[in-house]
Amino acid sequence: MPVNLSTPVASELHPVAGVRLGVAEAAIRKLNRRDLTLIEVAAGSRVAGVFTLNRFCAAPVQVCKDHLPGGNVRALVINTGVANAGTGEEGLANANATCAAVGGLMGIAPEQVLPFSTGVILEPLPVDRLVAGLPAAQADLRADGWFDAAHAIMTTDTVAKAVSRQVTIAGRTVTLTGISKGAGMIKPNMATMLGFLACDAAISQSLLDALALEAADLSFNSITVDGDTSTNDSFIIIATGKAGNSEINDPLGEDFRALRDAIIDVSIRLAQAIVRDGEGATKFMTIAVEGGKDRAECRKVAYAIGQSPLVKTAFFASDPNLGRILAAIGYAGIDDLDVSGLRVWLGSASEEVLVAENGGRAATYREDAGARVMKESEITVRVDLGRGLERATVWTCDFSYDYVKINADYRS
Amino acid sequence: MPVNLSTPVASELHPVAGVRLGVAEAAIRKLNRRDLTLIEVAAGSRVAGVFTLNRFCAAPVQVCKDHLPGGNVRALVINTGVANAGTGEEGLANANATCAAVGGLMGIAPEQVLPFSTGVILEPLPVDRLVAGLPAAQADLRADGWFDAAHAIMTTDTVAKAVSRQVTIAGRTVTLTGISKGAGMIKPNMATMLGFLACDAAISQSLLDALALEAADLSFNSITVDGDTSTNDSFIIIATGKAGNSEINDPLGEDFRALRDAIIDVSIRLAQAIVRDGEGATKFMTIAVEGGKDRAECRKVAYAIGQSPLVKTAFFASDPNLGRILAAIGYAGIDDLDVSGLRVWLGSASEEVLVAENGGRAATYREDAGARVMKESEITVRVDLGRGLERATVWTCDFSYDYVKINADYRS
Repeated sequence: MPVNLSTPVASELHPVAGVRLGVAEAAIRKLNRRDLTLIEVAAGSRVAGVFTLNRFCAAPVQVCKDHLPGGNVRALVINTGVANAGTGEEGLANANATCAAVGGLMGIAPEQVLPFSTGVILEPLPVDRLVAGLPAAQADLRADGWFDAAHAIMTTDTVAKAVSRQVTIAGRTVTLTGISKGAGMIKPNMATMLGFLACDAAISQSLLDALALEAADLSFNSITVDGDTSTNDSFIIIATGKAGNSEINDPLGEDFRALRDAIIDVSIRLAQAIVRDGEGATKFMTIAVEGGKDRAECRKVAYAIGQSPLVKTAFFASDPNLGRILAAIGYAGIDDLDVSGLRVWLGSASEEVLVAENGGRAATYREDAGARVMKESEITVRVDLGRGLERATVWTCDFSYDYVKINADYRS
Repeated sequence: MPVNLSTPVASELHPVAGVRLGVAEAAIRKLNRRDLTLIEVAAGSRVAGVFTLNRFCAAPVQVCKDHLPGGNVRALVINTGVANAGTGEEGLANANATCAAVGGLMGIAPEQVLPFSTGVILEPLPVDRLVAGLPAAQADLRADGWFDAAHAIMTTDTVAKAVSRQVTIAGRTVTLTGISKGAGMIKPNMATMLGFLACDAAISQSLLDALALEAADLSFNSITVDGDTSTNDSFIIIATGKAGNSEINDPLGEDFRALRDAIIDVSIRLAQAIVRDGEGATKFMTIAVEGGKDRAECRKVAYAIGQSPLVKTAFFASDPNLGRILAAIGYAGIDDLDVSGLRVWLGSASEEVLVAENGGRAATYREDAGARVMKESEITVRVDLGRGLERATVWTCDFSYDYVKINADYRS
């Protein structure tokens, strides 16, 4: 059961001018399921992307990295079922063949196609079946295809993930709609976190590139389910320029700030949806670390807390186990951390409780207050490192019996 | 059920000349259990130690770090029940009071006493009860006290951990006996890995210091249960000099090599015992990484595999899940790793199976061979990075339902 996340409402997913989506059943790995998605992007659109740092990066990721710098991307093709990762030269040939087939069908060059795969690692991509499914996906292309596409990119996700909003920029309505899938690399072999966000704003390529990095950093790169980085993680932002605003090219201007805020907001919600649907998750945890000398050390502490199996099992048990949180802060890797300057709070939507200060439990802390917070399904751990002005936030979920069950049973 | 580990045989734990051990029931946290251990060390002994890097290091660790450089250590005092960690100034005062009490009783200076605590974090040490228990521990001091001491330092360990062996150095029989406790920081609040190893060899302080670092690096710092570093971890080596060998002071000499090998062997077995008794463990895994440019990158890869919840749940399920192992190698943090040069084997005591090469599954690999290896209780994952001559080994256990159960239920 995902934590406070349900299937998006189709009518609330605004079409983005210049983007059409189509899905098909290609029997990549299983019959009778939509496993192929085609996204058509209008000429003149700008596209930016961020990809996994895993050295076993999948063939489609390598092809994306080749094609993206050329600009002029006109199509994205996404298959589920097989990740085409750990597949060597044959995998690369299959990813390129996919792009060639899409190009042939749509009358564009193979280099104008970005391919994405998610599913089982180490198995060959059945590229013939994928290619055979493309005409149906093309025939299905429509502006309101977001809802179906959100479903067609799912692997073992339990709910589809999509977010949409509109903002006014320079008097024009700008629409942003995105979809995502995955739960870190929490699913056995079903690797991959994918995120696709489109907007109709006009923005320069350099600012879009910077924004993709920043938005990924604050969203998809700020979540953890089990700390495993997949081979296929990809996050793409498309800006079609159809909204009619004059091109945004001033990083200090109001228009950029408005678009930036909206893109980051949608990215964060798409990323959070992945955590909410984390394997076996029963709680959604925000780890907010402030008072650091730099953002990197705040992230270290947030990830140490958010990835600790001891902290995550304590949250599953609704146990306000301070010792585990403090120990995680202590081993996060800040060598000169003065623990006497730390403060830690546990918070829910309705209250925030100071739990630690002066190197130990806060004098005012009462365990029943901590226990009350821990009973909630959305909990914030706030840490003030007391040594600077920087901050970072990481989102994670708890660690339950079902996590082990799902991951131990998957292939048996 | 620990993996291939049972209670040591008391008669096989050789006394070490110059060391006596006594235990007592001090009711530190629970009645009717031995929770206080006193170790008396003969005058002229040399002592070296390695301590946790956790910034929330416990009060006794701070006191040890103060007292150890002074040399001339004559006693160690260990309590279970309360870790005296996250206890601020009061905790420091309690650790110092403990040393003063031991000093008064034994006619030595407080600075000649090393204190150790393990148990619940964030709770005050009941120093009065501890001090009241000291005379009984002193009265119990005896050379063959290792077996009882191994039991008295346990917290939630399921079996006592002790290793003993004798080697001949320069014609003299040298005895090494050690005890350990803990399972990383796997136990909720029951933090702490402790290791105490004594030998009767004569060795210079500088070589003993270097040996303590090296032995810790190859043993207690090469295991992981859940990746959590405790606030109290300590490893101590005592060399009493009673064996009659002439003092070892040549790091290139044969005597040093013989002692070094023996100390590392005992340290590794003491450390492995902790993993074998890891919470919920059903399998003991050796992750051996070779062919690295340096030892640090080999350790990175070994820890990435050994700490991945996905890998650990797969081992629990006896599932030869290559994708998870390869993905962990890929995100271990070697930025310029060429995955096409990697080779990976799964091995048991009776066979070794090549599972991956050339960036994917090995052509010769058959899943039934992998499945056969995975059914064993002791499994080796061997990785050849194919880029250098260095190596590192890490030991870990699998991740089972019981891990979550024990850690989620502990305080409820």
